Amino acid sequence: MSENLVISVDAMGGDNSPRVVIEGLVIAAKQNPDINFLLFGNQEKINPILNLYPALKKVCEVRHADEVVRNEDKPSQVIRNRNTSMYMAIEAVKKGEARAVVSAGNTGALMAISKLVLKTIQKIHRPAIVSIMPHQNGKYVMLDLGANTECNAVNLAEFAIMGNILAQHALEIKKPRVALLNIGAEEMKGKEEIRQAAQMLKNSRLNIDFIGYIEPHEIPNGVADVIVADGFTGNIALKSIEGTARLVVRLLKRAVKESFLAKLGLPFMLGVMLKVKKTMDPRLYNGAMFVGLNGLSVKSHGGTDALGFSVAVGNAAKLVRQNFVSTIRNELEQVDLDDLSQDIIYEVY
Amino acid sequence: MSENLVISVDAMGGDNSPRVVIEGLVIAAKQNPDINFLLFGNQEKINPILNLYPALKKVCEVRHADEVVRNEDKPSQVIRNRNTSMYMAIEAVKKGEARAVVSAGNTGALMAISKLVLKTIQKIHRPAIVSIMPHQNGKYVMLDLGANTECNAVNLAEFAIMGNILAQHALEIKKPRVALLNIGAEEMKGKEEIRQAAQMLKNSRLNIDFIGYIEPHEIPNGVADVIVADGFTGNIALKSIEGTARLVVRLLKRAVKESFLAKLGLPFMLGVMLKVKKTMDPRLYNGAMFVGLNGLSVKSHGGTDALGFSVAVGNAAKLVRQNFVSTIRNELEQVDLDDLSQDIIYEVY
Repeated sequence: MSENLVISVDAMGGDNSPRVVIEGLVIAAKQNPDINFLLFGNQEKINPILNLYPALKKVCEVRHADEVVRNEDKPSQVIRNRNTSMYMAIEAVKKGEARAVVSAGNTGALMAISKLVLKTIQKIHRPAIVSIMPHQNGKYVMLDLGANTECNAVNLAEFAIMGNILAQHALEIKKPRVALLNIGAEEMKGKEEIRQAAQMLKNSRLNIDFIGYIEPHEIPNGVADVIVADGFTGNIALKSIEGTARLVVRLLKRAVKESFLAKLGLPFMLGVMLKVKKTMDPRLYNGAMFVGLNGLSVKSHGGTDALGFSVAVGNAAKLVRQNFVSTIRNELEQVDLDDLSQDIIYEVY
Repeated sequence: MSENLVISVDAMGGDNSPRVVIEGLVIAAKQNPDINFLLFGNQEKINPILNLYPALKKVCEVRHADEVVRNEDKPSQVIRNRNTSMYMAIEAVKKGEARAVVSAGNTGALMAISKLVLKTIQKIHRPAIVSIMPHQNGKYVMLDLGANTECNAVNLAEFAIMGNILAQHALEIKKPRVALLNIGAEEMKGKEEIRQAAQMLKNSRLNIDFIGYIEPHEIPNGVADVIVADGFTGNIALKSIEGTARLVVRLLKRAVKESFLAKLGLPFMLGVMLKVKKTMDPRLYNGAMFVGLNGLSVKSHGGTDALGFSVAVGNAAKLVRQNFVSTIRNELEQVDLDDLSQDIIYEVY
């Protein structure tokens, strides 16, 4: 383990900040005794809360930031203001003072400032947003979840490479099975850029276990470890999955409420329900990672609680310890994607 | 009710045909005493089963078809063979012998033959696949579910018009709330064609209650009655929803199996579980409708059972009784979509 694992934190992002952020750091610090935190935000709001947690205070350095990125702020505005807690937290990574940044603030702003300050890795055309998600027997990574609405085959292939490395590091899977999200398993279905990306990923020079297309209903079966899509499609799939999981739970709750018999049975079933709830608990999958940048930027859900925030911090720490960013850089030096894309056989319609 | 509501049925489509198809017609005939069926397929296989159901036999006319469309057949092949049960069943609608066709066969083939034989309604550029789905308080219609991988703004606006009429007819909602599926509620998010379609749908000449964008996780809340997307996005959302619903149910089942206590509680909870299962039961939402054609073509799930097949037939009958196809035609005569699209303010990036 590295001696000096510093993570920079935007203390002012998300609902109920800085309280939830600091309480999240309390949990994260206990689980990761090797981390030191650089905490950016309003000192007057941070210090009274931090004083309640002496153990955390010892591994925290607070740096005052006058301003805050609000949820309604546009990316074009926020990149011009260097005095926000978010901007300063990201800049700490750029300066080498921290190795990753975590924020529960505005996603668009975090991506815009991260791109501007940290810059995209030289051989990557577009950074992507990745999350770790649950399937029936374990976890998988999915990207892009919304950074890039439209993508070409090279972008998709880059996402596959980065997702492959992420699954190796964060999920500890030696040879992740990588799939492209599509609407049919057949070779000819779906969009042209997806078919072209499939051709690129089959190339043995990439050293990726590419298993072909995956349809969204197969995702929960755990047949793939890395699922690659453009940001629009990935976001649609992610939000459909989240919404449906919540719907089923809500329908169950409502049905139990309306049934006297079910209420009697509840004590027997509580354990089972909690177990399923835990498997699907969004807090345990909190922390969307921005990959493809010279530094790691992690977005916590704005509405999460202390446990959720600590998971995002834990993910960031794990990837830093494993030198995730430099692994991506090294991997990409071995292969020229633009060159690979020359091999695509363009189909004529 | 019309006196002579004839529905044409491809008896050979789907798993376990023609048995499941005929058993489905038994249920449908009981619930819809006004329907007569034209049944296409292999007489030698159909008649022995049909003989078991004298009541159904009275309202059925069997027409022999030598050949069958197989699941692996490509659309380009099947449109050339007029001797399949699917082709003949669709042709009966074209000839005016039936007012709708139902098949559990190959989706691509059914769409290709339906387009070729029935033709697209004059003012519609592209037919779409629609399904009725459950949300927490009722049902909604979603289209396109896969007929058109890429769509422009005019296509999306056409889907909205057809979906609006379908919700009025099939769900009996007077003024359906129509929404465009997108990845953010903000005006600027998502793809250009979606933003352009939003501009068109705001036009008062369309007389649509357009409520703006909807994100996939909001769908189960029941905030919209018609959800419009291109066929790729719609298919991704549909399959994500189906897969997740099954995952949650599977996790619950597995957890119950592993817990002695939960097994004790099962008798109390069974009612609740069955209720939720029924709300989500895919059989009750079976029957994807191809809309935008001069005639109604309904695709039943290939793996459904008799109950599921009867739901698809019932949906077809309901839309025929309400003159769904001519309503679309009339509605489109009032408004020129290509003309409307001239009003789009193209954004400069």
